[in-house]
Amino acid sequence: MKIGIIGGGTWGLALSNVLSDNNNDVLVYMRDDKKKNIFNTSHRIEKLNVDFNDNITASSNIEDFSNFNYLVYAVPTQSIRKSLEENIKYFKKDVNIICVSKGIELGTGKRISEIFAEHIDIDRFSILTGPTHAEEVSVRIPSAIVSSSTNPLLMEKVQDLFINEYFRVYTNSDIISCELAAATKNILALAIGICEGLGYGDNTKAAVMTRGMHEIVRLGEFLGGKKETFYGLTGMGDLIVTATSKHSRNKRAGILLGKGIKREEVGNKIGMIVEGIPTTKACYDLAKKYKLDLPITSELYSILYEGKSVKSALENLMSRERKEELI
Amino acid sequence: MKIGIIGGGTWGLALSNVLSDNNNDVLVYMRDDKKKNIFNTSHRIEKLNVDFNDNITASSNIEDFSNFNYLVYAVPTQSIRKSLEENIKYFKKDVNIICVSKGIELGTGKRISEIFAEHIDIDRFSILTGPTHAEEVSVRIPSAIVSSSTNPLLMEKVQDLFINEYFRVYTNSDIISCELAAATKNILALAIGICEGLGYGDNTKAAVMTRGMHEIVRLGEFLGGKKETFYGLTGMGDLIVTATSKHSRNKRAGILLGKGIKREEVGNKIGMIVEGIPTTKACYDLAKKYKLDLPITSELYSILYEGKSVKSALENLMSRERKEELI
Repeated sequence: MKIGIIGGGTWGLALSNVLSDNNNDVLVYMRDDKKKNIFNTSHRIEKLNVDFNDNITASSNIEDFSNFNYLVYAVPTQSIRKSLEENIKYFKKDVNIICVSKGIELGTGKRISEIFAEHIDIDRFSILTGPTHAEEVSVRIPSAIVSSSTNPLLMEKVQDLFINEYFRVYTNSDIISCELAAATKNILALAIGICEGLGYGDNTKAAVMTRGMHEIVRLGEFLGGKKETFYGLTGMGDLIVTATSKHSRNKRAGILLGKGIKREEVGNKIGMIVEGIPTTKACYDLAKKYKLDLPITSELYSILYEGKSVKSALENLMSRERKEELI
Repeated sequence: MKIGIIGGGTWGLALSNVLSDNNNDVLVYMRDDKKKNIFNTSHRIEKLNVDFNDNITASSNIEDFSNFNYLVYAVPTQSIRKSLEENIKYFKKDVNIICVSKGIELGTGKRISEIFAEHIDIDRFSILTGPTHAEEVSVRIPSAIVSSSTNPLLMEKVQDLFINEYFRVYTNSDIISCELAAATKNILALAIGICEGLGYGDNTKAAVMTRGMHEIVRLGEFLGGKKETFYGLTGMGDLIVTATSKHSRNKRAGILLGKGIKREEVGNKIGMIVEGIPTTKACYDLAKKYKLDLPITSELYSILYEGKSVKSALENLMSRERKEELI
């Protein structure tokens, strides 16, 4: 089959390798002509230190994607709306989308599926999400991921397209949780970074991850998700990869916060959107609105938006009323 | 209050510090007279690089523990039976035990509470378990842990004794799961070690941890436990600490297995009991008996006891029938 990938970043390219290994011809959209030409000549991305199969090519002309039945959308979350508005007219009316981005749209607070639903029939939309560094998938290190959609046939078709001996694809129809889990894990990545910035150890981080998942599950269930999904690959699995990675910008932002640097400055230092920050605000607002007890999220909000010191936030968490674990 | 600690290893001593910070006088049982004398003179453990409070003292005479209402049992799991048989006659008839060991007894397959139940009324037995390196608790790094017992009053009393601003104690009455979670996480620590030994990355480890928890929860629920406990501090939390730690002997054993070294040799190289190995056998036997699908445990069993190569075990896992995530 021929499959298009909108977005020539490392994740889109890593997935092009998987699709090509599964005997598909892949066309990757790269806006930048120079980048496209280098790729088509060398079939290599220096940054990843990876050589790509010959049946992967790049195009900078969006009209080349007008005949595809399946398009992988690998565009940063905050650019999806603009990309869709510009490009949807070039795609087939009944194109199927496989979106591989994670996050919540700033401003609207929408999940990615909600942005797509403004443009396409939601039953032609699916996501692929889980604990998968592009750097490792590119070199065929065994990984597991989840295909999710409201349309069971599409969900299984996507599983079919991607699954192979190094890329194990599970299906999960609970798309709300899959999307929320992938976004909210960035709140905990920030919190774990703070612990690291404060010089705390593995005990503190394990406690934050576990109790943090506990409260995110509370929010997720309230919003109609299943707790099992949050404890699966898209939530807990992805959190483990994020929390143990040096590459996570959310964790790096947390480390800076832990060292006492303020939110505004942290954004400047990281130089990219730190998605955990607005996600914390979005979840804090939800918790307030629905009177949910999310202690780690609340303290993080106070650090980010009310100037509370990290030390006193942690003291608050440690000195809360004594509790049963499962309540 | 005066509290006794049976076992002068690093974990018993770390907890003596917590109890002493909470205004209790602590007596620690050290069989070795020389070690006892050094401790009582220096109040210092070089290995931990920690100075201990003055109200912690050591005794090598078990009769000194005959008047205590609360005894912390910090003896290696495989030595508990012998320790109890030798010493129970010296303790008060209505002594309350707080056991802080983890694991399953080799040979009998018993949980620790089942060993104690042969000697004391189980309503005077409790455990304290969670993601807590002794090295970090000793220096008062914020940590969270779980107190569990069939006796709610004892469970809360233990919470009361230990909780403070750096040591947050939750209660959880699901003692079966707390014990099983602490033991079975060693199976996954072995599996994660194998991935590391094979040179695989964070993706593989996150997949093994997540899918591994999924199957351990299946076993735990079958045995009467609650899935929420397994996903809490005693299960997932402890797994995170174990999997990210260089100190875990189970993980180190897994790394050797991943490099192709056989079970018998691995035991010799580690030089201590690798509890994940018999625990894998115990769980494999249970899975077989009750026809439960535990793919990671089964492949691990084949590696350990049937000489299967790690590569082919992983290939089996990756090429299983395609699945829904939540089934």
